[in-house]
Amino acid sequence: MEKVERYSFTVEPFHVDFTGHLFMGVLGNHLLNAAGRHSHNRGWGIDQLNEVHYTWVLSRLSIELDEMPAQYEHVEVETWVESVMKLFTERNFLIRNADDGRIYGYARSIWAMIDVETRQPSNLLELKDGDILRYVLTADEKPCPIAKHGRIRLSQPEHLRDVDTYYSDVDINGHINSIKYIEHILDLFPRSTFELHHIRRFEIAYKLESYLGDTLSLYGEPSAEKLSDGQPRSCQVEIRKHVGAPAKPAGETIVQALIAWE
Amino acid sequence: MEKVERYSFTVEPFHVDFTGHLFMGVLGNHLLNAAGRHSHNRGWGIDQLNEVHYTWVLSRLSIELDEMPAQYEHVEVETWVESVMKLFTERNFLIRNADDGRIYGYARSIWAMIDVETRQPSNLLELKDGDILRYVLTADEKPCPIAKHGRIRLSQPEHLRDVDTYYSDVDINGHINSIKYIEHILDLFPRSTFELHHIRRFEIAYKLESYLGDTLSLYGEPSAEKLSDGQPRSCQVEIRKHVGAPAKPAGETIVQALIAWE
Repeated sequence: MEKVERYSFTVEPFHVDFTGHLFMGVLGNHLLNAAGRHSHNRGWGIDQLNEVHYTWVLSRLSIELDEMPAQYEHVEVETWVESVMKLFTERNFLIRNADDGRIYGYARSIWAMIDVETRQPSNLLELKDGDILRYVLTADEKPCPIAKHGRIRLSQPEHLRDVDTYYSDVDINGHINSIKYIEHILDLFPRSTFELHHIRRFEIAYKLESYLGDTLSLYGEPSAEKLSDGQPRSCQVEIRKHVGAPAKPAGETIVQALIAWE
Repeated sequence: MEKVERYSFTVEPFHVDFTGHLFMGVLGNHLLNAAGRHSHNRGWGIDQLNEVHYTWVLSRLSIELDEMPAQYEHVEVETWVESVMKLFTERNFLIRNADDGRIYGYARSIWAMIDVETRQPSNLLELKDGDILRYVLTADEKPCPIAKHGRIRLSQPEHLRDVDTYYSDVDINGHINSIKYIEHILDLFPRSTFELHHIRRFEIAYKLESYLGDTLSLYGEPSAEKLSDGQPRSCQVEIRKHVGAPAKPAGETIVQALIAWE
């Protein structure tokens, strides 16, 4: 079995924003589909692992793009495993135009395997006798030329918005869907930001689960560094959850993100 | 060119609700993709029409299902044109399981063609010398055994929720995306409704456009007729828009919908 999985899609009309480019959340969804197919085709899919009471949990996702695919473009994603540690594995992505081969960008992700009963992380190196190591492609063998995940730390977070969660926010496990957080985060920015800039890098860290009915409180902190037109170069965002109505002090941190503009 | 277009998809993990079934909005998106492909392959695609300053506008969509496709199922959609009038065309859909052929359900839709400059409807029978009539499959030739679109009329609408619109709600034309309305409408219902019932029929009528920053006010009216457990058999929903903050009296009606449960 080849170590790299390829996954193709066409940028659909309802998946582009008002600039005609793919929504970041939809790109994230495609990357997760590619990851799922890579795992499944190598005996490590969620469906196969559920039988032995394990499941994958996404911990970090960082996407860095020269360009976001546009409506009707054909996109090919390559995904592979760069490393496996005891409790985490690093999975990378290359995103290219399927017609002319130009590279839109790359992504990195970190995953843990948990026991669905105890919710405790499992030792990836022991599962299936270390079978996962057969699929590793080191950074020398298959480079992913973007920075690793950074540390997101808000020192003076400003409360920006509370978002209630409903039926459409929730996945099959009853958790708020990883992709919906990306939508809620990008919805913090006004139209003008997307008219004048594009997202160079998007990082998200999933810390805790939230559930249908939880209220999400979104906090932000813009960078001191500015682009030439005065807009902050980046913004850190933190989502905290409230079971029921928001209260002070704010609830537990469930998601952190960084959006860097260009 | 065959009169029926076939379009296939797999039900992806992030496209299912907490019951493991496809979100209605995602099904709607797939139907619109199928319609787009049918039109494009016959010289009537939006991309081809834009060159001559015309575009398709969806006016009505009614979906009726015995069963909603579940996660990982392979789905095939057939779509065809049932009739063409001067200002409207009727397009139907059949939705089936691609592996065993069982039929999940059917859908009907109504479309107008408008001039993108004047926003006025165009005469479909005159465009391209009536070429569109070559693709008609009458109800006798290809049946679509579900009711036509009904009349949605709320006599005592109750104000249920206001929804602000953001970046993720808007399509490439700057309009609130047709699919997002479906999400906002279904988000009116509590978890228990989806646990106990499934949607037998979903109807939506698109009346006017709304734009990024508009506030949507959602109104509902449950049917007097009840299911055996006391839940209303159906609910009519109306969305009105406000430019800026909601005011009384409520704004213009932009969308109407009917959700019938089973």
